[in-house]
Amino acid sequence: MIARLAVIGVGLIGGSLARALRAADQVQDIIGCGRSLDNLLLARELGVIDAYTHDPATAVRDADLVFIASPLGAMREIFSQIKDVLRPETVITDGGSVKGSVVADAQAVFGHVPPNFVPGHPIAGTERSGVAASFPELFRNRRVILTPLAETDAQALARVTALWQAAGAEVSVMSVAHHDEVLAATSHLPHMLAFGLVDLLAQMQNNAEVFRYAAGGFRDFTRIASSNPVMWRDICLANRHALSDMLACFSHEMTELAATIRNGDGEHLLDIFTRAKAARDRFIDGAH
Amino acid sequence: MIARLAVIGVGLIGGSLARALRAADQVQDIIGCGRSLDNLLLARELGVIDAYTHDPATAVRDADLVFIASPLGAMREIFSQIKDVLRPETVITDGGSVKGSVVADAQAVFGHVPPNFVPGHPIAGTERSGVAASFPELFRNRRVILTPLAETDAQALARVTALWQAAGAEVSVMSVAHHDEVLAATSHLPHMLAFGLVDLLAQMQNNAEVFRYAAGGFRDFTRIASSNPVMWRDICLANRHALSDMLACFSHEMTELAATIRNGDGEHLLDIFTRAKAARDRFIDGAH
Ligand SMILES: NC(=O)c1ccc[n+]([C@@H]2O[C@H](COP(=O)([O-])OP(=O)(O)OC[C@H]3O[C@@H](n4cnc5c(N)ncnc54)[C@H](OP(=O)(O)O)[C@@H]3O)[C@@H](O)[C@H]2O)c1
Ligand SMILES: NC(=O)c1ccc[n+]([C@@H]2O[C@H](COP(=O)([O-])OP(=O)(O)OC[C@H]3O[C@@H](n4cnc5c(N)ncnc54)[C@H](OP(=O)(O)O)[C@@H]3O)[C@@H](O)[C@H]2O)c1
Repeated sequence: MIARLAVIGVGLIGGSLARALRAADQVQDIIGCGRSLDNLLLARELGVIDAYTHDPATAVRDADLVFIASPLGAMREIFSQIKDVLRPETVITDGGSVKGSVVADAQAVFGHVPPNFVPGHPIAGTERSGVAASFPELFRNRRVILTPLAETDAQALARVTALWQAAGAEVSVMSVAHHDEVLAATSHLPHMLAFGLVDLLAQMQNNAEVFRYAAGGFRDFTRIASSNPVMWRDICLANRHALSDMLACFSHEMTELAATIRNGDGEHLLDIFTRAKAARDRFIDGAH
Repeated sequence: MIARLAVIGVGLIGGSLARALRAADQVQDIIGCGRSLDNLLLARELGVIDAYTHDPATAVRDADLVFIASPLGAMREIFSQIKDVLRPETVITDGGSVKGSVVADAQAVFGHVPPNFVPGHPIAGTERSGVAASFPELFRNRRVILTPLAETDAQALARVTALWQAAGAEVSVMSVAHHDEVLAATSHLPHMLAFGLVDLLAQMQNNAEVFRYAAGGFRDFTRIASSNPVMWRDICLANRHALSDMLACFSHEMTELAATIRNGDGEHLLDIFTRAKAARDRFIDGAH
């Protein structure tokens, strides 16, 4: 049981974890922290949090567990604001989509990565934002990746693992670098393709017509281009190196595909599409 | 009322149009044509067709309307097979995803594009194939593009228009070249990105793990990579030029995006993502 949970950034992710823990009867008091008063008032009205503050230091002072679910670009400043008031026994975790940058931010602010800080990332989300979009089932049967360091306290890791399990998630552990590479491939690159495609089409001369003839497949394909632009700017900046590498690999793949199409090599095209369909059917549909 | 409809290629598209016309009471007899006996037997069992043949010439002999819904690569051969038995008053239309190649095939076989041939393309589909995947509502409230030529008979055009409207679709008319450019952007390019991404990830060393951490957004994004590989090979070959042009534009967009990420230009990233999100929200969600 968590006596006092502080959620810094009461949006889709922070709000959903608060709701899930409350629904699972795992928490007594929840204090929410954010910048906009409207979002915090709504969070209290919805019963997601019990109290609120705009000041991270106030939020964490008496907390036994802190969940930071702000955009990645705000992490370092939040660490600075809580540094001096954080009790040594308080466990901290976060939900940021990139882990290397968050660990570097902690290192820069604290001079070392605090043993009670367990970096984490729930592999769950929607393209909507804010506490209004949050719901307690978001993490049910979804994966959460924790990326503890050598110096991370085993009890803190166990506590954060139990927390996510109480929210219905399946917890995996991997290294920071590996996390950032895997997510560059499965999440960050696809978002770049969706944003890039929609942007390209929007720039076409007859763009209203172009979108008019976009069918159902296009709708699904581009759904992720409706995601929060600030969050994605931060993810790109935070995972710059792994994402650049993946973009380069993908460009290479596309250059080859374009040449295959231009040369009219039907056999090779059939190979590629057959392989891709098999992989997609096997891995994705087999996974659920 | 159509006294006798011939459907050549009784798959998702051909089967769904047959079902829709039957449901709308627009057709008396439907004869199906294809290569595999199993699919034709299933089509008859499901009530999608009344009779079947493996021979396109037999199928069209007494038909007053012919719908060709085979993969694009089979069109030219089918035209050759029906050329000598087709009655001059029979109206022909097709559902192929590229129009320039079908028109070129007709030109090559008949020596001219028959006035009673109305090239068409329903902007509707799923990633499934065969008559088992067909359903009568597939075209309801979806668009169908017809690309008549100067020599196309006005009555044939009117008849094909009425046919699709009876199936619940909204019919638009545009030029062959314009159709192939618009579809390269909204359909063919996105399919290449989805196939390419899944293929790239499947080639990664730790591919089982990579797919394990793919979340809901990835599932939607790559759904179209489960589409029929033969159909997509044919589309690529048939729309080679417009698709190569779109791939080149997209590569240019991605090269710029990669540079923006590598340079850490957050402001520019925010601009791109904000513009893309606005376009996606406006055009796609506003369209329904
Ligand atoms: N959405 C997803 O699919 C997803 C999935 C997994 C992980 N994540 C990660 O989870 C985190 C939150 O994402 P989200 O989707 O929940 O975004 P969100 O719905 O926009 O929520 C973020 C919250 O953080 C608050 N915030 C922003 N700047 C802050 C600051 N300086 N101090 C305190 N609070 C601040 C915002 O409120 P104010 O603007 O009022 O401050 C907002 O309520 C991000 O790090 C993201 O990478 C997202
Ligand atoms: N799926 C979509 O999303 C979509 C959307 C719009 C337009 N289209 C177009 O519609 C057409 C059909 O696509 P579909 O999705 O309906 O594919 P499908 O479900 O695979 O159906 C195609 C049918 O054509 C038959 N066929 C193949 N070769 C043939 C030949 N040489 N002679 C006669 N029949 C032949 C196949 O049966 P056998 O193998 O037994 O011969 C099969 O039943 C394609 O031109 C495609 O470009 C597809």
